[in-house]
Amino acid sequence: MVKLSYIEDFKRWEGEFNFFHPVKVRFSETDMFGHLNNTVPFTYYEEARIEFFKSKGFMQEWVKPENETIPVVADLQCDFLSQVFFDEKINIYVKAASIGRSSVDIHYMGKKSDNSICFAGRGTMVQISKKTGKGIPWSVDMKEMLKSGVRVQA
Amino acid sequence: MVKLSYIEDFKRWEGEFNFFHPVKVRFSETDMFGHLNNTVPFTYYEEARIEFFKSKGFMQEWVKPENETIPVVADLQCDFLSQVFFDEKINIYVKAASIGRSSVDIHYMGKKSDNSICFAGRGTMVQISKKTGKGIPWSVDMKEMLKSGVRVQA
Amino acid sequence: MVKLSYIEDFKRWEGEFNFFHPVKVRFSETDMFGHLNNTVPFTYYEEARIEFFKSKGFMQEWVKPENETIPVVADLQCDFLSQVFFDEKINIYVKAASIGRSSVDIHYMGKKSDNSICFAGRGTMVQISKKTGKGIPWSVDMKEMLKSGVRVQA
Amino acid sequence: MVKLSYIEDFKRWEGEFNFFHPVKVRFSETDMFGHLNNTVPFTYYEEARIEFFKSKGFMQEWVKPENETIPVVADLQCDFLSQVFFDEKINIYVKAASIGRSSVDIHYMGKKSDNSICFAGRGTMVQISKKTGKGIPWSVDMKEMLKSGVRVQA
Repeated sequence: MVKLSYIEDFKRWEGEFNFFHPVKVRFSETDMFGHLNNTVPFTYYEEARIEFFKSKGFMQEWVKPENETIPVVADLQCDFLSQVFFDEKINIYVKAASIGRSSVDIHYMGKKSDNSICFAGRGTMVQISKKTGKGIPWSVDMKEMLKSGVRVQA
Repeated sequence: MVKLSYIEDFKRWEGEFNFFHPVKVRFSETDMFGHLNNTVPFTYYEEARIEFFKSKGFMQEWVKPENETIPVVADLQCDFLSQVFFDEKINIYVKAASIGRSSVDIHYMGKKSDNSICFAGRGTMVQISKKTGKGIPWSVDMKEMLKSGVRVQA
Repeated sequence: MVKLSYIEDFKRWEGEFNFFHPVKVRFSETDMFGHLNNTVPFTYYEEARIEFFKSKGFMQEWVKPENETIPVVADLQCDFLSQVFFDEKINIYVKAASIGRSSVDIHYMGKKSDNSICFAGRGTMVQISKKTGKGIPWSVDMKEMLKSGVRVQA
Repeated sequence: MVKLSYIEDFKRWEGEFNFFHPVKVRFSETDMFGHLNNTVPFTYYEEARIEFFKSKGFMQEWVKPENETIPVVADLQCDFLSQVFFDEKINIYVKAASIGRSSVDIHYMGKKSDNSICFAGRGTMVQISKKTGKGIPWSVDMKEMLKSGVRVQA
């Protein structure tokens, strides 16, 4: 089993996901080496993360022009565990691995239809003020919703 | 010589361009058939069109958040005249082929370094109000600047 | 009703589609003007066209490395009939409007969930030989499959 | 100064780069939050990495259809250190931070025209066989070329 710095126990990590969003590899997302271009999984991560936030009711607020806060990505990483080809259906799993004051560490897993894992990844999202650019703490409600099934950062 | 509905005389059409913006084909813009994916030239057209509008001083105004107007694309078309490959340098030529009240018909030509033409295209841009979505006529000054070397629509 | 050069009777044109593929606007497909970037519908067209060809059994052959022929796009055009925003669900309709010897004129229509039409478009596809780059005529079977519900070019 | 797991001493890390490739933020690369979409820097990394490999003479071999080896990306990460906007010119710096048997750890830094650093990143590239998918060791010559200015992995 592959060893990644952000995963202590791969089997447990894999088992903790309970949300996923399906994507299918577009022809325009392949490159001349014949497989999925390596820049594309980050687009899948964004799409799946937004669906995850929508399932929590967050995204709907963030895209309102009058809303004070928006989410920004502080960092992103992806491990490419196997090659992915045109037309493959990948389920992108998303979970909140740990929750900070105004940030959340989101983990990602891409699974093929044969249940093999083709991507693993993570990245920090921060809720900031559009005006000041500073982090805006999660409300108690938001924290509750993110927490469902995740451990809170000490 | 290829016959396109928006080009009466190809040689004259080619000769009327005097602005271009160079692009180079990115690896991520190729697809598994080994050449430039057909969706990408429209990205090149946008990039070159914006540089064209910047050269006229228009774009700088349009991207100001407080500015009332923005340009929108009403239609776009592209003829793919030859295959294009990774790392090729293409000059994207842009001209205002004809000017309407609040619109302009922009023509495009992609030229390889051997001077062969790989793309031809066109599309209507309209200046609209952000609030109403209605067309906002060009000012006399804007018309003058667009007109440099183009015929005015009757 | 909008007047487009490739549509004689809009209502009849709209009624002749019987295949569609649904897409949803990704966040990364919007631009700083707040709506879907104009280069993206061509990606949707490609995705829907490929699903259309898959429904006819063509695409499966074309992507086999040992297959002699591939489809290439000779031209593409899109009319943007209304603004499209993040997270909107668009059904991309596809039909073979007319069939040539080795080419086919594909038409596209994008429909929002309120049934309003946001895109119209068309483009010629040609089946070529990978080796020679020349057009390879459709087989009788392929023509039959494409013909279902389309008129044959004189 | 920001603390990143793959950078021991930020000032030294910054000073060790001596190759860069300039990019300019395209309009189509922004999103509705008004800045560069977070998936795009990976495209810049790929473009700059390929220019880096071209400067070493590697890429030219890898894209030849008859060549046995191709480079694949094993992992990628990016830290977003400041917001980036439409039309900004960013120099993407690239270096080989450490060299393995068939792999290389590539580091990236994005610098704005005011010399502020907007992205930092890294990722492992592996040279594999197209046929077997297994890692193919660097030749002595390749190692020499990659080594210029980098420390070799113990």
